[in-house]
Amino acid sequence: MTEKIPVNQKLLSENDLIAARLREKFRQKGIIVLNLVSSPGSGKTTLLEKTIGALKDKYRLALIAGDVQTENDADRLIRAGGSIVRPIVTGGACHLDARMIERSLESIDLDKVDLLFIENVGNLVCPAGFDLGENMKVVLMSTTEGDDKPLKYPAMFRKASVVVINKIDLLGLSDFDLASARRNAREINADLIFFEISCRDGRGLDTWFGWLTSLIEKSGNR
Amino acid sequence: MTEKIPVNQKLLSENDLIAARLREKFRQKGIIVLNLVSSPGSGKTTLLEKTIGALKDKYRLALIAGDVQTENDADRLIRAGGSIVRPIVTGGACHLDARMIERSLESIDLDKVDLLFIENVGNLVCPAGFDLGENMKVVLMSTTEGDDKPLKYPAMFRKASVVVINKIDLLGLSDFDLASARRNAREINADLIFFEISCRDGRGLDTWFGWLTSLIEKSGNR
Repeated sequence: MTEKIPVNQKLLSENDLIAARLREKFRQKGIIVLNLVSSPGSGKTTLLEKTIGALKDKYRLALIAGDVQTENDADRLIRAGGSIVRPIVTGGACHLDARMIERSLESIDLDKVDLLFIENVGNLVCPAGFDLGENMKVVLMSTTEGDDKPLKYPAMFRKASVVVINKIDLLGLSDFDLASARRNAREINADLIFFEISCRDGRGLDTWFGWLTSLIEKSGNR
Repeated sequence: MTEKIPVNQKLLSENDLIAARLREKFRQKGIIVLNLVSSPGSGKTTLLEKTIGALKDKYRLALIAGDVQTENDADRLIRAGGSIVRPIVTGGACHLDARMIERSLESIDLDKVDLLFIENVGNLVCPAGFDLGENMKVVLMSTTEGDDKPLKYPAMFRKASVVVINKIDLLGLSDFDLASARRNAREINADLIFFEISCRDGRGLDTWFGWLTSLIEKSGNR
């Protein structure tokens, strides 16, 4: 007896297979891999620029920057210097999938990487459904969005391990309430950990860098 | 000889068929229909609240509010008062499609509507591919996002007729440059028209309301 598998489910299983293969490879190499997701304009690229600036002299960083169109983000990350940067232009696709990552990794020597950031396409919906073999999904939200975003895009917050709240320098200029944002996110996923940062005035960034450092140091690659 | 049609293409054609049916119905009834799209947090719901407040005493408004999860947006629009509001919870789907709109319209008496707003799911990618029978797609972007969004999400700006740039009260607090945003958008689509507004301090809203009024007056429904 054969069972019909819906197309979506079949695609997802293939993605999961590749993601599992990637995860095992990352584990063997002792590489920390973070999948950074957010809506467009939350500040993913700016956060990565700051992170490169802070960590590049101490650790070996690689970054895969996914975009629907243009290599703008990758170009910005290259200009930040001292790290391996690969663009993925999805050409319309609304998320990165594990096969794209696997292909992109062909040109990266993983023996020379401590920390790999994957900057996903700006989209709070679709990337939630695609495992890329990462250790964690990090979801970035900003204080200029609504503090109810976790309730409205629950899949992403359920799949994520970390929430970074960016643009805290703009608190008070909108109705965004930090406590509500945290409460809404914890309602979806009680295990989330939070960072509150401003890439503009630098607040909270040292805590973020410190956390990344501890992840790398514990990975056993060093 | 039979030709195999890829699943996506088939779905899209079915959507286009329904959208064409909806468009003809809207035309017959003389209803202006605007499909409002943006990334999460650009201020779609707030703009609609302000728009209801300004126009509800003069025109008959209906609003369909799409969300992945929760009816928060619809609840906010209902509280704004004086208009017909219908939520669509997509339950994970990253866009509205024409069938959802057709179903939602079953509970709206279109003979009593001058202007229908469809608030799409917060997503700059996927909703670009789905015609909902609207007169125009209106894309909202905010000054707290990057001014390169049109280049990075070109399909949406290509399909749109109107760009509303929101949160101009926050100009100067980020690197967002209005002229660059316009130039980037026009590079994708030279026919775009622009509004620059702040839902917070009210700048530009009268121009927006005036444009909506002229659309309704010209529709022949009045």
